[in-house]
Amino acid sequence: MDARPLDALNRAKDKKVIIELKNGHQFIGVLRAFDIHINIVLDETEERVEGDVKRKLGTVFIRGDTIILISPA
Amino acid sequence: MDARPLDALNRAKDKKVIIELKNGHQFIGVLRAFDIHINIVLDETEERVEGDVKRKLGTVFIRGDTIILISPA
Amino acid sequence: MDARPLDALNRAKDKKVIIELKNGHQFIGVLRAFDIHINIVLDETEERVEGDVKRKLGTVFIRGDTIILISPA
Amino acid sequence: MDARPLDALNRAKDKKVIIELKNGHQFIGVLRAFDIHINIVLDETEERVEGDVKRKLGTVFIRGDTIILISPA
Amino acid sequence: MDARPLDALNRAKDKKVIIELKNGHQFIGVLRAFDIHINIVLDETEERVEGDVKRKLGTVFIRGDTIILISPA
Amino acid sequence: MDARPLDALNRAKDKKVIIELKNGHQFIGVLRAFDIHINIVLDETEERVEGDVKRKLGTVFIRGDTIILISPA
Amino acid sequence: MDARPLDALNRAKDKKVIIELKNGHQFIGVLRAFDIHINIVLDETEERVEGDVKRKLGTVFIRGDTIILISPA
Repeated sequence: MDARPLDALNRAKDKKVIIELKNGHQFIGVLRAFDIHINIVLDETEERVEGDVKRKLGTVFIRGDTIILISPA
Repeated sequence: MDARPLDALNRAKDKKVIIELKNGHQFIGVLRAFDIHINIVLDETEERVEGDVKRKLGTVFIRGDTIILISPA
Repeated sequence: MDARPLDALNRAKDKKVIIELKNGHQFIGVLRAFDIHINIVLDETEERVEGDVKRKLGTVFIRGDTIILISPA
Repeated sequence: MDARPLDALNRAKDKKVIIELKNGHQFIGVLRAFDIHINIVLDETEERVEGDVKRKLGTVFIRGDTIILISPA
Repeated sequence: MDARPLDALNRAKDKKVIIELKNGHQFIGVLRAFDIHINIVLDETEERVEGDVKRKLGTVFIRGDTIILISPA
Repeated sequence: MDARPLDALNRAKDKKVIIELKNGHQFIGVLRAFDIHINIVLDETEERVEGDVKRKLGTVFIRGDTIILISPA
Repeated sequence: MDARPLDALNRAKDKKVIIELKNGHQFIGVLRAFDIHINIVLDETEERVEGDVKRKLGTVFIRGDTIILISPA
């Protein structure tokens, strides 16, 4: 059990996560960094639309205020 | 009776809650963590659309500014 | 007469209020707690859509930035 | 002439004002309280839609971030 | 030349300005007061829609976060 | 090379810039002032819609939170 | 591996990046500067719509709150 929500992100570091954005897009990659604004850096990132890989992006910085949720992939 | 709204979230810890987002999606899971931004971590999470389970997600971090309400499930 | 808007919420504590959200939904319940962000906790809550009870929710935490207005029911 | 915008709200206290919201709704009532977020409390409030009284609400707390303008009625 | 944007608003004080809002509405009036949030008070205000006077409002308080631009009329 | 983004705005001072807003409108004028919120003052401003001059505005104060980008014209 | 998300932006300095905005537009250019709000300055910038170059913009200041993601091009 976590004391704070950011602890859950800390446990997910260097693991594969799925991130869903407010515009409906999904990004799947290895969680490398986050901050209190929930700005995120992923490695080996794939963007998916309705389950299909739309493109591969490598490293991606995602601005926190566009994110709905983050979950282990 | 609670003195502050976050006290109500504290009483719901480790219990099943339903969370509704601004985009209309519902998440049901065990409330594990929250902070003053209402960032939330759920365990054993199900996403529901119009009452039906859409998918099972395990642990989920939900960004607070996407949330409309939280209620015991 | 109130000196500050939050005084009016304080006078409404433990009384029935109606809350209207930016998405058009209405919640009616007993006001148990609020904070400076206008995060709200209601008890014995009903959600209404166009005057009809849509569902009963018991205790509900509502995030302040989704709220348009609060008024005695 | 006012030095600061909130001075104009102060002069309108205990007088009838019209408030227009971002969703197009209008509220007319006696201005009882406001704060720096432009959270407002009105008494003897009427909600109007296209000039017609939609309902009477008595005391209403309106969250500041939903407000476009405030003007003497 | 102004050192800071608010200097330009200061020079416009007690002069006629046009204000355009995010919802497309225009307000023309005498600029009486502003603050760092760009909350504005106008006197002798007219609301215009597509160039035509829609209504006369006298004194108006406009919340800054609804404003796109302010220009001498 | 700039150390900080605002350095680039500083270098553009008293030069012609194009500003694009979230609502799709374009403003072209001489950059006179800016602040950390990216509030902007332009002189000799033209508003353009799809490349055509829609109107001439002289001095314009533009609220920063409506701006997408600023570029030399 | 980065400790903080802004470290990833720092490593991308003076390199070509792709930036995607909330309105769906893409900008590709050399990352020259950024700050904690994720305000960005690009050089040699191209705007692309659905993969095609729409226009060339040289230096561009992009306001951080319009950005979804930043990735090496």
